[in-house]
Amino acid sequence: MKKRKVSVLGSTGSIGRQTLDVLSAFKEDFEVVGLAAGSNVQLLIEQIKEHKPRFVSVKDTELAQELKSTLSDHSIEIFCNDVGLEFISSSACDIVVNGLVGSMGLKPTISALSHGKRVAFANKETLVVAGGLIKNLLKRNKGEIIPLDSEHVAIHQCISGARESEIKRIILTASGGPFRTWKEQDIQKATKEEALKHPTWVMGPKITIDSATLMNKGLEIIEAMVLFELPVGKIDVFIHPQSIVHSAVEFVDGNIIAQLGATDMRLPVQYSLFYPQRRELPFNLFCDLLSVGKLEFEAPDFNKFPCLKLAYHAAKEGKSYPIVLNAANEIAVDMFLKEEIKFGDIPKIISSTMENHKPSEPSSLDEITELDARIRREVSERAKTSKI
Amino acid sequence: MKKRKVSVLGSTGSIGRQTLDVLSAFKEDFEVVGLAAGSNVQLLIEQIKEHKPRFVSVKDTELAQELKSTLSDHSIEIFCNDVGLEFISSSACDIVVNGLVGSMGLKPTISALSHGKRVAFANKETLVVAGGLIKNLLKRNKGEIIPLDSEHVAIHQCISGARESEIKRIILTASGGPFRTWKEQDIQKATKEEALKHPTWVMGPKITIDSATLMNKGLEIIEAMVLFELPVGKIDVFIHPQSIVHSAVEFVDGNIIAQLGATDMRLPVQYSLFYPQRRELPFNLFCDLLSVGKLEFEAPDFNKFPCLKLAYHAAKEGKSYPIVLNAANEIAVDMFLKEEIKFGDIPKIISSTMENHKPSEPSSLDEITELDARIRREVSERAKTSKI
Repeated sequence: MKKRKVSVLGSTGSIGRQTLDVLSAFKEDFEVVGLAAGSNVQLLIEQIKEHKPRFVSVKDTELAQELKSTLSDHSIEIFCNDVGLEFISSSACDIVVNGLVGSMGLKPTISALSHGKRVAFANKETLVVAGGLIKNLLKRNKGEIIPLDSEHVAIHQCISGARESEIKRIILTASGGPFRTWKEQDIQKATKEEALKHPTWVMGPKITIDSATLMNKGLEIIEAMVLFELPVGKIDVFIHPQSIVHSAVEFVDGNIIAQLGATDMRLPVQYSLFYPQRRELPFNLFCDLLSVGKLEFEAPDFNKFPCLKLAYHAAKEGKSYPIVLNAANEIAVDMFLKEEIKFGDIPKIISSTMENHKPSEPSSLDEITELDARIRREVSERAKTSKI
Repeated sequence: MKKRKVSVLGSTGSIGRQTLDVLSAFKEDFEVVGLAAGSNVQLLIEQIKEHKPRFVSVKDTELAQELKSTLSDHSIEIFCNDVGLEFISSSACDIVVNGLVGSMGLKPTISALSHGKRVAFANKETLVVAGGLIKNLLKRNKGEIIPLDSEHVAIHQCISGARESEIKRIILTASGGPFRTWKEQDIQKATKEEALKHPTWVMGPKITIDSATLMNKGLEIIEAMVLFELPVGKIDVFIHPQSIVHSAVEFVDGNIIAQLGATDMRLPVQYSLFYPQRRELPFNLFCDLLSVGKLEFEAPDFNKFPCLKLAYHAAKEGKSYPIVLNAANEIAVDMFLKEEIKFGDIPKIISSTMENHKPSEPSSLDEITELDARIRREVSERAKTSKI
């Protein structure tokens, strides 16, 4: 069988490394044609040596130059910045695994879908800020999205092509993060170290903080609306501390179909590469339900986790609100990770940004990126002048 | 839309009554054309008055006569016995709901499948004794089986047309019955009243006793082998006391898909009637996972429940062993319900019958029914002469 060609964006990040782990185990089935990374040149060089891609992209010309001199004996083309990301996503590949963090994942996704590629997708921010744009691209071209987020890949497996009228609701599960059992006033004062201790998943820092605020689940609500074309009223969140049930679909006829599995990104990565086939897992990552013992579910506490409420609000209001929610959140999380603000300031920054926002309906990529950039500037400025 | 025509076999039994409940709620979609019952003429008459079937079948000519005189003003044709069952299953209907208990469900199933009908199927004994025959019929004709057993209808929903090579195993869940937490020696002496107290499901007496011995799960293993064309090595049993997860499929890629729902037969009945569509449930039977709180799983104890071990043995040996297992079990359960033997005698009777059996490979319906009848006679005789 002909090998399928894969590009990995964000190859040195958490998703990227796990994707290359899976690809290493299936060298008979896939060829890595493109890698894109930020500034971790050391790891990127190792990845290039193992996977021998034809195209590589890094953050800027300086890093590109560094890479060129180190890899002078390899026949690869080296690009940098957005141009590189877009080229790699639209070049001679069949599948793009987009493991980029934040809204920088948007352009390469549009590029890949415009060229009819399969995009394996862990970049929920892209769907949050440009849901309408992406939906239109999917309708017009032959591209497809296979979600990599454990929740959405769960729903992708459970929904089985059902029509919206057959779906009562989808149930997104959330571990509840490190602060599930904390008191509201203690969560406000949580430190960076405490917020980075996720109980069940090992992930990058931005998504780990989003999991602690439950904004991650909030973004996933909006992501699910785009991916499965559902109204916000059909998307519920359940806290499920064991993170074994990754999500579920409840149908109008009373049947609930759920997906369960280990908490390891290599499972969704493998699923997305082989879909609609299922191939033997090369890792010892089968989920032993008997040793798990019990699975619990509880309703989320919106007072303890105001970010979830803000996300539902943005989802309901629609228009430019999801863009504002996401931009304000990215800036706030970044400031928290730099220890410039407190944990409890994150929802405050988002909330005040949304309150000050006059909604618009940006439809083109330019309009979206312009609004996104403006919101980020405003949030940063207001935060600096302590007008949180 | 044209109404689909439904026949209900065993209409006055547990499955039959619940099927008519569902059909009453969907009079726009379905027309009841045939009803077959045993001897509960009182209830059958009520059902006839409500559903106005064209064909009715009862156990014998005497009951048929009684029915005729009572319903002289209704234009229905009344049959009796096997002939009636077969006619109703092959007459002008689209769907046969077979709610018959024990091996008497076999002939009408063959009749319906031969005529290319959909059979909604709660009669696992038929699949156990005539699995090969049924599989051949399904291959040759246009008929299809939609399982009504909660476990198999769960798998029907989870398996999504996957090939056998993609399936690592199916996990049949079992509540564990009333004796899950009992000591082995106490189970031996359990009374009829104790055995009939099922913790989660309300069902007929035979299947309730089978649930207490776990033979029900054993028969379901063989049923699953036939329905999903899987080897016994790919079928595991988990005890799940809450009976919310009705069964699951574990795929080779590490993903587990499970079906969850209320413990009420009207859900699988409705699913089987509308499949592949899903229609709004007219009963308040949605499963509230938040109020369930927790789901637990444990391995079954083969020493406490030797019937499960016997069923695995019959499934592995194949040939005529499943027929022997089923016949010996039906006789033993019948004797237990008549309080002629102890609870602990049920597996002993089955075990000694299997040990004495010289395996054959009956392939025709006649050979199967002949062997089935012979085993029943032998078991009854041996039990009467206390040679258990």
